Amino acid sequence: MASGTARSERPTTAARRTLRDGARADAKPAPVDLGVLTSHLGYLVRRAQLWIFQDFNRTLAALDVRPAQYSVLTVIDANPGLTQMALAHALGIERARLVHLLNGLEKRSLVRRSSSASDRRSHALHLTGDGRRMLARVKTLAAEHERHVTERLGAQQRQDLLRLLAAFASG
Amino acid sequence: MASGTARSERPTTAARRTLRDGARADAKPAPVDLGVLTSHLGYLVRRAQLWIFQDFNRTLAALDVRPAQYSVLTVIDANPGLTQMALAHALGIERARLVHLLNGLEKRSLVRRSSSASDRRSHALHLTGDGRRMLARVKTLAAEHERHVTERLGAQQRQDLLRLLAAFASG
Repeated sequence: MASGTARSERPTTAARRTLRDGARADAKPAPVDLGVLTSHLGYLVRRAQLWIFQDFNRTLAALDVRPAQYSVLTVIDANPGLTQMALAHALGIERARLVHLLNGLEKRSLVRRSSSASDRRSHALHLTGDGRRMLARVKTLAAEHERHVTERLGAQQRQDLLRLLAAFASG
Repeated sequence: MASGTARSERPTTAARRTLRDGARADAKPAPVDLGVLTSHLGYLVRRAQLWIFQDFNRTLAALDVRPAQYSVLTVIDANPGLTQMALAHALGIERARLVHLLNGLEKRSLVRRSSSASDRRSHALHLTGDGRRMLARVKTLAAEHERHVTERLGAQQRQDLLRLLAAFASG
């Protein structure tokens, strides 16, 4: 494909000038042309996810809790006794990844697995006392993180995004 | 924290009944209460990203090109000769991950690294002839993927999302 057929939304002159003038390797590079990427929803969703997760990790650094761990703790708290399978399905997490996550939370004494009353092949999940106390602290910082999101976007825009993105969360 | 303080948006009765009635481990589990998660933008953005990337991978399976590879090919095509550093910065990809991505594309003879004319410590990136031909085929299927996104959301909702999410892509 000839490069002329690529849809260009910004000229690349600035980027080329930086290269020609021998910019230092550690200097902040000039903007580059993203081509068709900015018209792909996937690209913008991924960039948004990176921004949000980085802010979450920064805001919750003192507690060493990542977004997936927060999701797991929250759903176990709201559904005590649910199975690993139900949790994996609800969060759209692969089974192997969830087992890894639960192993880490169990090692930190935040989650307890016990044999399910109804199905011995499955584990029932509960928060421990430590887990509930940790989740309370996590929720305070997660709310602070969410305020950062609101500051970045505006409150109305955040509400609009929550509504529009729900189309993808319904299975 | 007492579990009663968790904000519940749906009752968990159905999930509890499934457990009590001894649902088979391989049956599709009943809906569970997601608690506060659905009021976190990060949760919905992540679910959207998973849906979109899964559809992208399914639609482009025959070409074996993943979203990050598509981004890299597109930006090199629109900015021939740009450096690895500029590409990493433009896409928000960590340096080590980008090197891994470029190694894979170079092995498939889609991308060519050459010494930068202006900076011998840096590599200038170009698509090969094969790379340009591959990108043309990729773009056709990427457009088909984007139609799936539009079908899921509606055209106006997709436009609204592109506009709202741009707030996160501006560095």
